[in-house]
Amino acid sequence: MSHQHRDVDVVVVGAGMAGLVCANRLRRHGAEVLLVEACDQVGGRTAGIEVGGEIVDLGGQFIGPGQDRIYALADEFGVDTVPAHTVGASVFETSAGRLRRFRGMVPRLGPATLADVARAHFLLDRLARSVDADAPWRSPNAAALDGRTMESWINRTMKTRGGRRFLVLACRAIWACEPSELSLLHALFYVKAAGGLAAVTDFEGGAQQDWLDGGAYGLAIRLADRLGSAIRLNAPVRRIEQNDSGVAVTVEDGTTWRARHAVVAVPPPLAARITYQPPLPASRDNLLQRLPMGSVIKYVSGYPEPFWRQAGLNGASLSLHGPITMTVDSSPRSGRRGVLITFVNGAPARELATRSPGDRRTTVLDALGRLFGPPATTPMSFVERNWNEEAFTRGAYSAVFPPGAWTQLGSAMRAPTGRIHWAGAETSPRWYGYIDGAVRSGEAAADAVAQAVNNERALGRPS
Amino acid sequence: MSHQHRDVDVVVVGAGMAGLVCANRLRRHGAEVLLVEACDQVGGRTAGIEVGGEIVDLGGQFIGPGQDRIYALADEFGVDTVPAHTVGASVFETSAGRLRRFRGMVPRLGPATLADVARAHFLLDRLARSVDADAPWRSPNAAALDGRTMESWINRTMKTRGGRRFLVLACRAIWACEPSELSLLHALFYVKAAGGLAAVTDFEGGAQQDWLDGGAYGLAIRLADRLGSAIRLNAPVRRIEQNDSGVAVTVEDGTTWRARHAVVAVPPPLAARITYQPPLPASRDNLLQRLPMGSVIKYVSGYPEPFWRQAGLNGASLSLHGPITMTVDSSPRSGRRGVLITFVNGAPARELATRSPGDRRTTVLDALGRLFGPPATTPMSFVERNWNEEAFTRGAYSAVFPPGAWTQLGSAMRAPTGRIHWAGAETSPRWYGYIDGAVRSGEAAADAVAQAVNNERALGRPS
Repeated sequence: MSHQHRDVDVVVVGAGMAGLVCANRLRRHGAEVLLVEACDQVGGRTAGIEVGGEIVDLGGQFIGPGQDRIYALADEFGVDTVPAHTVGASVFETSAGRLRRFRGMVPRLGPATLADVARAHFLLDRLARSVDADAPWRSPNAAALDGRTMESWINRTMKTRGGRRFLVLACRAIWACEPSELSLLHALFYVKAAGGLAAVTDFEGGAQQDWLDGGAYGLAIRLADRLGSAIRLNAPVRRIEQNDSGVAVTVEDGTTWRARHAVVAVPPPLAARITYQPPLPASRDNLLQRLPMGSVIKYVSGYPEPFWRQAGLNGASLSLHGPITMTVDSSPRSGRRGVLITFVNGAPARELATRSPGDRRTTVLDALGRLFGPPATTPMSFVERNWNEEAFTRGAYSAVFPPGAWTQLGSAMRAPTGRIHWAGAETSPRWYGYIDGAVRSGEAAADAVAQAVNNERALGRPS
Repeated sequence: MSHQHRDVDVVVVGAGMAGLVCANRLRRHGAEVLLVEACDQVGGRTAGIEVGGEIVDLGGQFIGPGQDRIYALADEFGVDTVPAHTVGASVFETSAGRLRRFRGMVPRLGPATLADVARAHFLLDRLARSVDADAPWRSPNAAALDGRTMESWINRTMKTRGGRRFLVLACRAIWACEPSELSLLHALFYVKAAGGLAAVTDFEGGAQQDWLDGGAYGLAIRLADRLGSAIRLNAPVRRIEQNDSGVAVTVEDGTTWRARHAVVAVPPPLAARITYQPPLPASRDNLLQRLPMGSVIKYVSGYPEPFWRQAGLNGASLSLHGPITMTVDSSPRSGRRGVLITFVNGAPARELATRSPGDRRTTVLDALGRLFGPPATTPMSFVERNWNEEAFTRGAYSAVFPPGAWTQLGSAMRAPTGRIHWAGAETSPRWYGYIDGAVRSGEAAADAVAQAVNNERALGRPS
C-alpha cells in the first residue's frame, strides 16, 4: 500500500443509519469523508418504499422514549414523529385460531397463563437489571446466564403450556429468532440496553410509541442528501488494508480509496465477509463467526382506508396460530389510506420463505383476513421484504448472540482494530439493535475517529 | 459470464483433505479438474512441519477403527499407520495441580466423581444412539435436544463438582469449545457420527488408535503430487458465479476459471466469505452465519528421546489445572527422538492467545514440566500452531453447531446449491469433523458432480 496519497480522511463502509450518522458527524468534526454502500440505495435496515406518495418503512420504523439520539436527529431535520395508532383493541389469535380482543401488551390468556407470563416478565426484568450493558461478560453470574438458551430458561421457569407458547411468540416478536438460538445473557443484555422489558414491548411509553413521518428511510435519505457526492452506491467493499499510516478500502469494481481510518458499519456477518489485510485478530474474527442475524419477513399492505378502526380495532395483533407473528397499524396520519404492516419472524419466516411468492401472499393475506375480516385479503398494494434474502443485510432485526459468545469473545465487539472502527446497531451498549443504537454507534465511532485524527495531527504524523 | 469457453470440468476450492480427495476422484471419473488453494501449501487442517527429517502433524493426525475411508486411502498410497504409544501410564493433573497416574481414558477421580462421569458417559451414549446422523433435525426429540447447551445438560445431569469439571475438560478435548457454545443435539450427532462415545475418546479401539507414518500432512502432499499442475496455490477464491450452464471461479488476483461445476471444500465460516452470484439462498447463507470453528492451539515439542517412557509414562495426559487440555506422545516409531504434542483448547486457548509468544512458550513448557518433569521444559524444538489465527482456517478442529442451528437450518448443510457442491469434514454424516469425514465428503462430492456431468452429457447440454 502506498502512503503517498490519500483520497479522504475517513472511509465509512455501509450507508445504513449508523454509517450515515457517522459520516455526517465526521464532516462536522472537519474530516473529509467518503461513504461507500453496497446497495443501490442508502438506508440499510431502514429501507422503505413509496406507497401512494408516502414512504412506508420496510425495515426499522418505530422509536420511543429513551431513544434520545434518534429523536434529536429527527428534530435536527425537522422530521415529525407520529404516535402509533393505539385507539381501539388489539387482536390475539390463539394457536387454535380463535380471536380475542385485548388492550395493552398482554392478551387475555386465562388466569393461570397470565400469572405465569406476568411472573416471567418480572423475573426477566429483575435479571436484566443485574447485567452490565457496557460489558455483558462482566455481569455478575455472566457465565451461568450465557451458558444456557432462552429456551432452557423458559422450560425451567414457565409453569403453564400457554405461558411457554406466549414466551416463544415474544421471542419471535422481539428478537426474530427461536428461543433455542438465543443466549439468556444476550436477551437480558438487550432488555437492559433498552432500559427494561416494558420499554422493549410497549407501544405507549415503549420502543413502539412513535414512528417517523416520512419513514425512517426518509430520514436516511435526508442524511444522505447532506453528504451529496461523498456517497458511492453499488460499491460493495471487498477488502480493507491497513498499516501504520492509513487504510485502503477496495470495492467490487477494483476501485481503492485511501484514508487515515475506516469505519465499518455493516451487520456483523457481513463485516466478517470483507477481506482484511492484515487479517483480523483471532478474537474479532472468531466473534464475527458467532453472530447470526435474526429472521424477518416484513409485509406492507395498503388499503383504501384503515377499515379495522371502524370495528374498534387498532390494527395491532399477535398470533400464536401463525405463520404471522404480529401486525401493526402503519396508516398515514391523514387517515386517507390504511396501511398494515405484518411480521413473520423466526422459524415461521424460514418455513414461509421456502414457498412460492403466490403461496406466501395467499398465506399472509389469509392470516390478515382471519384477524381483520375479508377486506384485509384484498389490499391495493402488497409489498414483501424478506431481510434474509437481502445479500447485503442477510437478516434482521439484529444479530442474535448464541450462548457463549458474549462471555468467550464479547470484549472484541466494540474495540477498534487498529485504524478500523466498528459501528452499527450491534455495537451500541444502549438500544442494541434499534435505530437509536445505530445512531449512537455512528456518533461514537465518529467521535473516536475524529479524536484519533486530531491526535495524529498533533503528533505531526504524515498527512 | 461467457458460456463460450470452459477451462476445466470442475473447479475444487480448498486443498484440504476433502478437496484433495475430491479432485483426485473426479479425475478418476474422467473429469478435468482444477484445485485452487488459498494458502501456500496444501493440507488445510492437516498441516505439518518437518522435525528432524520427519513430518509431524500440526493439525489433524489421529485415525481409528471405523474410519474406513482414510485407512483405504493410506493403503492406496502405501502409507503405514503407527499405533499411538500407549505402553505405560497416563497422567492426570487435578485443578489443584496434583498428579495422578491412570490407565485407560478416565483418570482416578474419586469414587463419587467416577460414578458420576461413568453415568454421564452412559447417558450421552444412549441419547446419541437416538440421533439420525443423516438428518439430525429429524431425530426424535430433536427440538428439545437442540434447544439447550451442553452446559445446561451438564449442570442438570452431573451430581458432583468433580464430574462437572471433568465434563468441561472433555468438551474442550473433544470439541475444542466450552460447553456453553455447544448444542446438545450437535454433541450427540457428533458422537453418533463416530459410532459412540468410546470411539470418540479412546486410543486403542477409538479415533486416537493410530496415526499416519509421515503424517496426515504427508498423505496430503502425496494426494497433491498426483494432481501435479492441476493445483494452484496462493489463490484465495473470492467469487463464484453460476448460471444454467456453468460456474466461474475468481481468485484474489482476478484470474477466473470457468467450469461445469464447483466444489467448495473449506470450513463453513470461510465458505460464507466467498461472494456468490447469484447470492446463496437465505437458508444456506443463514446457516453459514451460525457455524463457528472451535479454538485450538497445538504445540509440538521435540526431545532427544521419549524420556517419559523410562518413568513408566505413555506421554498422554489430561489437565484440569490448565491451561493445557492434554498431551499425546507422538514420537517417531524409531524411538530416536521424543515428540510430545500438546493441545490448548476452548477458553484457555483464547486466553493464552492474548499473551506474548515468550509467555505462551514458558506457560506451556511449565505445564509440561509439571506433568513429565524438568526435561520436558527444555525441548530441542518447539512449534506452535494457533488455528484460530490462520486466515484460511480460522479455527479447529471443526465447526461447532450452537443451539438451534441444526433444527432451524440443518437441511441446508449438505444439499448442493445449483452447480456448487459442498464438501469438507463438516458435511459428512459419518465422522463429522475428522479426517475420515473429510475424505468421505470429498468422495461423495466427486461422485455427485461426476453423476451430474454425465447426466448433462447424456442430455447433450453444451459442452
